[in-house]
Amino acid sequence: MTASLLIRNVRPMAGATVDILVENGRIARIGKDLAAPAGVAVEDGRGEIAVPGLVEAHTHLDKSLWGLPWYTNEVGPRLLDKIDNERENKKRLNIDPARQSARQSIQSSLMGSTHIRSHVDVDTEHGLWGVEGVMQTAADYRDIVDIELVAFPQSGLLRRPGTLELMDQAMKAGCEIVGGLDPCTIDRDPKGHLDAVFGLCQKYGKPLDIHLHEPGEIGLFSFDLIIERTRALGMKGKVTVSHAFCLGVEPALVDPVIEQLAELDIAIMTTAPASRPAPPVKKLLAAGIRVCSGSDGIRDTWGPYGNADMLERAVFVGLRNNFRRDDELKLALDVCTTEGARVMEIADYGLAEGKAADLVLLPGASLAEAIVTRSPKRRVVKRGKVVARDGVSIRTAP
Amino acid sequence: MTASLLIRNVRPMAGATVDILVENGRIARIGKDLAAPAGVAVEDGRGEIAVPGLVEAHTHLDKSLWGLPWYTNEVGPRLLDKIDNERENKKRLNIDPARQSARQSIQSSLMGSTHIRSHVDVDTEHGLWGVEGVMQTAADYRDIVDIELVAFPQSGLLRRPGTLELMDQAMKAGCEIVGGLDPCTIDRDPKGHLDAVFGLCQKYGKPLDIHLHEPGEIGLFSFDLIIERTRALGMKGKVTVSHAFCLGVEPALVDPVIEQLAELDIAIMTTAPASRPAPPVKKLLAAGIRVCSGSDGIRDTWGPYGNADMLERAVFVGLRNNFRRDDELKLALDVCTTEGARVMEIADYGLAEGKAADLVLLPGASLAEAIVTRSPKRRVVKRGKVVARDGVSIRTAP
Repeated sequence: MTASLLIRNVRPMAGATVDILVENGRIARIGKDLAAPAGVAVEDGRGEIAVPGLVEAHTHLDKSLWGLPWYTNEVGPRLLDKIDNERENKKRLNIDPARQSARQSIQSSLMGSTHIRSHVDVDTEHGLWGVEGVMQTAADYRDIVDIELVAFPQSGLLRRPGTLELMDQAMKAGCEIVGGLDPCTIDRDPKGHLDAVFGLCQKYGKPLDIHLHEPGEIGLFSFDLIIERTRALGMKGKVTVSHAFCLGVEPALVDPVIEQLAELDIAIMTTAPASRPAPPVKKLLAAGIRVCSGSDGIRDTWGPYGNADMLERAVFVGLRNNFRRDDELKLALDVCTTEGARVMEIADYGLAEGKAADLVLLPGASLAEAIVTRSPKRRVVKRGKVVARDGVSIRTAP
Repeated sequence: MTASLLIRNVRPMAGATVDILVENGRIARIGKDLAAPAGVAVEDGRGEIAVPGLVEAHTHLDKSLWGLPWYTNEVGPRLLDKIDNERENKKRLNIDPARQSARQSIQSSLMGSTHIRSHVDVDTEHGLWGVEGVMQTAADYRDIVDIELVAFPQSGLLRRPGTLELMDQAMKAGCEIVGGLDPCTIDRDPKGHLDAVFGLCQKYGKPLDIHLHEPGEIGLFSFDLIIERTRALGMKGKVTVSHAFCLGVEPALVDPVIEQLAELDIAIMTTAPASRPAPPVKKLLAAGIRVCSGSDGIRDTWGPYGNADMLERAVFVGLRNNFRRDDELKLALDVCTTEGARVMEIADYGLAEGKAADLVLLPGASLAEAIVTRSPKRRVVKRGKVVARDGVSIRTAP
C-alpha cells in the first residue's frame, strides 16, 4: 500500500525547485539534488508545481449516476421532491452504492483528490445498503484514496420512524462521523433532531457533520441550537456545519455567529453555490474558522453537474467569493487542500518531511495559474505511488 | 472562405440521426442518407450531437493576457482600481490588441464559438489602438469566426475629455455597436453619458450595448433612463444592457422593469456571475426577452478566470439560476446559442436549410449531458469548413 519514490525537480506550492524523497509512503526529505536510494523509482517533476492532495470534504459517493445511462431530470423544485424522488427510484435506476462509489472514487482520485469525506444515505427503504457499499469501496480502493463515511439521514430522522435505529447501526458498523439534516424544515422538530444526532455523537464518541440548507433566520435559529449543544456537550472542534447558506445573509446577523464558531472551533463546509447566499470564505478564514469544500452530489438525481474536480471547485470558491487577486486564489486552494485536511483531522497531511506522500503535480507558472487552468495533465501521488497520470487512473472502474 | 461538406450521421439538438449537406458555406439539405455530390468532402458525425455555433456575445478581445507571462494580480477592490490599473499598465504589459485578440479568437473558435461580440476599449491613453487591432483580427480570422466590435469607453466618457471624439472616430472607422458604461457611478453624470451614447447611436444608425454594473436602486435608476431614451428615440430592439446586476434584486422592484424590457425588446447579457445579484434568466426568457451570455474578460488584469468556453458558460448560467432539469439546461444552451444570435441579429444563423453552416459536433447522449460534460472532443464547423478538432484549431496563434 505504501511506496518509495524520488520526485525530482518540482516546486512545492510554486516555490523554489526541489526534490522530494518518499520512503514507505512518507515524505522523508525535501531538498536540493537528493540522491536516489538504490531501487527507488524516480519521477521527473518537469519543474511542475506540487500541492498536497486535494481534499474532497463533502460528497455523496453512494448515489452518483456516473457511468450509468443519462438520467433525464424532471424533478420538482422543492428539497423534499428531490429527496423523495431519489429514495423512490434508487433501486429502479440501479444505483448500486458499491459500484457507484467505486466509479466516483476513481474519478476523484484521477482529478487529484487523495481524501474524501462521503455522506452516505441511511433510510428505512435501503437500510445500510449505502454504508456497506461505500465501506467496500473504502477498503477496495484504499491504494488510491482515503474515504471517511458520514452516516447521513437523507430522508429525515424522526419523520421516518426506524431511521434513528439504523443510524445507530451505521455508527456501530464503523461510520466515522454522525450526519444530520435541516432540523426545522425536514424533521420539523429541531430539538428532537439535534438531541438525537448529538446523542449519537456522545454514544460513539464521534464528530458531527450536519447539512444545514435552511436559509436566513430559520437557518440561524438551527445554527444557534447547534452551537448551544456543541458548547454544552464539550464538542469544541468536533462539529462541521455543511452548506450553512444562512451565513450568507447580512453581517449584522452573521457576525455574532462567526464569533461563536471561532470560540467553539466549529468548521464550515461550502460548495460555494452560485444560486444561493453562501458563507463568506475570506471572512471566516480571517476569524480562524476552518473552512472546507466539496463537490456535493456528482451527476445524480438531484442535478446533472459535477466532475469531482476539487481544482474546479477552488475556481468556484474563487468565483463565488469574487476572489481575483493571486493571494485570494491561494485561499481558494487552501480550502480545497489544507483547510479540508484540518476539518477531516488528517494528522499526517501536508507537503513536509514526515507527512504522508499524498500530493498532486500540476503544470503552471504560479499557483493561481495552476488553479484557473485546471489542467487535465495532472499526476497524482498517494502514499508515494503515482496513482493517476493525465486523467488515467491505475484502477479500472467497475 | 466557404466550403461544401457532407456531415453524415449526426443528431441536431440530440434529435433523430440525419445527414447535413453543406453547399458553399450554407446548409443545403438536412435529411436521411443524403448522397455526397462529386468532390464534396465527407465528415463522419459518429452519431454525435450537432448544435448551432456557440455565440460569445460579450467579451473583451483587445485585452486578454492569453499566452503572455502570468500576471500576478494585486489590484485593489473597486471597479475604478481595475479600470485605472489596466489603462496604466496596458503598454508595459505588452497587451497588443491585434495579437491578443487573435489569440483569444482562436481559443474561442476551438471551443466552439462561431460568432463573437467584442467590446473594445476606446480611451485617451490608447486612442483607437484597440479598435484597429481587433478589426485586423476580425479580417484576418474571418475564416474561423465572425467578430463584431463595440466601441467601448472603458475609462469613462465625460470624465476623460476627448473620449467622446474618439468614440465618434471609432464608429466612423466601422465599429458596429456603440458602447457605454455605468452612467452614474463612473461618469457621475447619467444624463450627460446617456445623451452622448444614444447620440452616437442616432448619428451612425447603430445599436447600443451598455455595461451596467450599478447595483440595486441606482442601477434601476440608470435603467429607467435607458428605457426612457430607447422609447423616445424609437430604438426598440436596438439596445442591449450588459450585466444588469440590478435585475437580480426583489421581484417587486424588477418586475415593472421586465415589462418595459419586453415592450421595447431590450436585450440582456448576463455572464451569470456567482458573486453578485444577477438577472433571472428563466423569468426573462418567459417574458420574451432576448438573453445572451459571454465570457467577459478572459484572463486579463481584471481577473484570472476564463477559457472562452461558451459551453462552460452555459454550465455557469445553469448553476447561477439553479437549473437542474434537462429542460432547464436546454435554456442555458439557448442563451449561449440561438438567443445570442438573436441579440447579435445574425440573420443566417441556425441548424436549418438555407442557414450558414456554423455548427459544433459534441459527444453526449442528451443535450444536458453534452453541456455538463463540456467535452474537449469537439468539432467546430464555420461556413462548412471544419475549423477545429479536439481542441486544435486550423489557425496558429501569433
